[in-house]
Amino acid sequence: MNDRTNGSSVILGEPVHIVESASVVGTKEGRGPLGTYFDLVGEDDLFGAKNWEEAESEMQKNAACLAMKKAKLRPEDITFLFAGDLLGQSIASSFGLSGYQIPMFGVYGACSTCGESLALGTLMVSGGFAKRALCVTSSHFASAEKEFRFPLEYGSQRPLSASWTVTGSGAFILSKETAGVARIAGVTVGRIVDFGIKDSMNMGACMAPAAATTIGNHFREWNRTPKDYDCIITGDLGKTGRDLLLHLLRKEGYDLSDCHMDCGIEMYDLEKQDVHAGGSGCGCCASILSAYILRKLSVWREWNRVLFVPTGALLSKVSFQEGRTIPGIAHAIVLERNC
Amino acid sequence: MNDRTNGSSVILGEPVHIVESASVVGTKEGRGPLGTYFDLVGEDDLFGAKNWEEAESEMQKNAACLAMKKAKLRPEDITFLFAGDLLGQSIASSFGLSGYQIPMFGVYGACSTCGESLALGTLMVSGGFAKRALCVTSSHFASAEKEFRFPLEYGSQRPLSASWTVTGSGAFILSKETAGVARIAGVTVGRIVDFGIKDSMNMGACMAPAAATTIGNHFREWNRTPKDYDCIITGDLGKTGRDLLLHLLRKEGYDLSDCHMDCGIEMYDLEKQDVHAGGSGCGCCASILSAYILRKLSVWREWNRVLFVPTGALLSKVSFQEGRTIPGIAHAIVLERNC
Repeated sequence: MNDRTNGSSVILGEPVHIVESASVVGTKEGRGPLGTYFDLVGEDDLFGAKNWEEAESEMQKNAACLAMKKAKLRPEDITFLFAGDLLGQSIASSFGLSGYQIPMFGVYGACSTCGESLALGTLMVSGGFAKRALCVTSSHFASAEKEFRFPLEYGSQRPLSASWTVTGSGAFILSKETAGVARIAGVTVGRIVDFGIKDSMNMGACMAPAAATTIGNHFREWNRTPKDYDCIITGDLGKTGRDLLLHLLRKEGYDLSDCHMDCGIEMYDLEKQDVHAGGSGCGCCASILSAYILRKLSVWREWNRVLFVPTGALLSKVSFQEGRTIPGIAHAIVLERNC
Repeated sequence: MNDRTNGSSVILGEPVHIVESASVVGTKEGRGPLGTYFDLVGEDDLFGAKNWEEAESEMQKNAACLAMKKAKLRPEDITFLFAGDLLGQSIASSFGLSGYQIPMFGVYGACSTCGESLALGTLMVSGGFAKRALCVTSSHFASAEKEFRFPLEYGSQRPLSASWTVTGSGAFILSKETAGVARIAGVTVGRIVDFGIKDSMNMGACMAPAAATTIGNHFREWNRTPKDYDCIITGDLGKTGRDLLLHLLRKEGYDLSDCHMDCGIEMYDLEKQDVHAGGSGCGCCASILSAYILRKLSVWREWNRVLFVPTGALLSKVSFQEGRTIPGIAHAIVLERNC
């Protein structure tokens, strides 16, 4: 069966395998409801580094190292690396992963970067250009607050719509040859969607229209409905964004109310851990994909097929201060249990 | 003939065509030695926008529009967009290109981003995943100085090793089906190379080791020598970086002294235009590739085959202020004249 490109989707004839993966998270995530599933929980949030940016780099380095170790692979066994994070000029990735000396494509799609890196890695492997691809993404609460909002020392109050950037990283090794923990049947690539929202304390609202657009396009281009999936999993919409997503998709005739999960909502005990709308950041859905979603598919065998939709808000402090909107983008990955 | 992956290179069985391209530059670039070749030279450097970041977005929008217009294509004829720039969270690209509503992969490789976007676009087209890919990159002197160095209003003095960020953008449409202005025979993907240099006023020295590594790998992996190319063209090493590159490659047994060109050196009259070491930025080699290199190949027919090597310095103001080094990365694209 041949690959087929349909609109913004690529439907693969032969699936690409997630050979292995690994997750690294910070202390707050380790105390959350999924805490026991992560491969590595930091003793503190500095991971032995001198500052928050280096700490985020350390998480990427550790996640990549663990994934390679589980797969019994060395860096020279990986053809191409796809990596990114939220920081200006993606410094968490470039400083974290340079030591492995893998030919690298830096990617940026805000919190959707995990989906973007998996989509590119999948297509590179499927096309025969990479024997194996390594996809690594991360975010860190403290480096993200510094990059986008206020110094932590201010102790700024946050509205209830605000999300809490996850301190975490996920790494995934893709290959056509080795069956692994799950397989990728195809992707739907996102477009930038701008509903004119300007509130950096309500990222869920910025991203929900992009998620709805990508999921709607996915159903139409793959000729599928929500019933074809055991779960449709968005990245980090949080409670506010989830409500908007369900509303927007209902208007298009799709009811996701009993088959939707949002990684941002799952990461924390929202009330007890005082995170307001939920978790966010590249590292949120990346670490949960590795630690929880892949287990639900191939270890616990509770799911057969899910749609994984990392969601990104294209915010920068410069554009924000210049009064620009915060557009969103979301990429969808079709994940299936290995037979 | 089948595609072949060899180390960090992909050698294509069937080439991918650059169907059309376009270049947009600012006033200073328009007054430089290549000024008459660019498709669009701004009347001023704001391109009708209210600030420098929006101006850079306008350049990307115009370059993409012009390339599609030349190729008689509309946005819906493009399968995937690969775009990036130097700014934090790549805002020039996301705000500049969102209106076209093309499924998008955001990429970041500092000034090597033009090479990265062309490499990914080429492989996506070659693999049959995209009927057509659009690759767009840019930089703007004023937005880059604000992002990386000092406010222009300070009038800071610059050392002779400093380069001048080019105000410019280049857009390229790739396809397998339509012969165009040149063809891409393959790529060599770069690794991050860190020689421990920390001087943000000497970007040439930060990037030269990465360029030398990628070019050396290219020769070995493709079993070629400098004699196989009419010209080996680096992105933006400037005078300082060029000297280092020639020195580093001479130590590996490759003499590039009579077949090397650097886009940063070509962009300006270095003495008269007071740019010190030369031009730099994503827009430097992107605009020169479209306006000059592709003409030398397919219009003036002076060159048969060149190696195009955009070079990037992975600098951020945060990592710089935290005392980190400035690593480099460079990607190589094999460009051939259409028969």
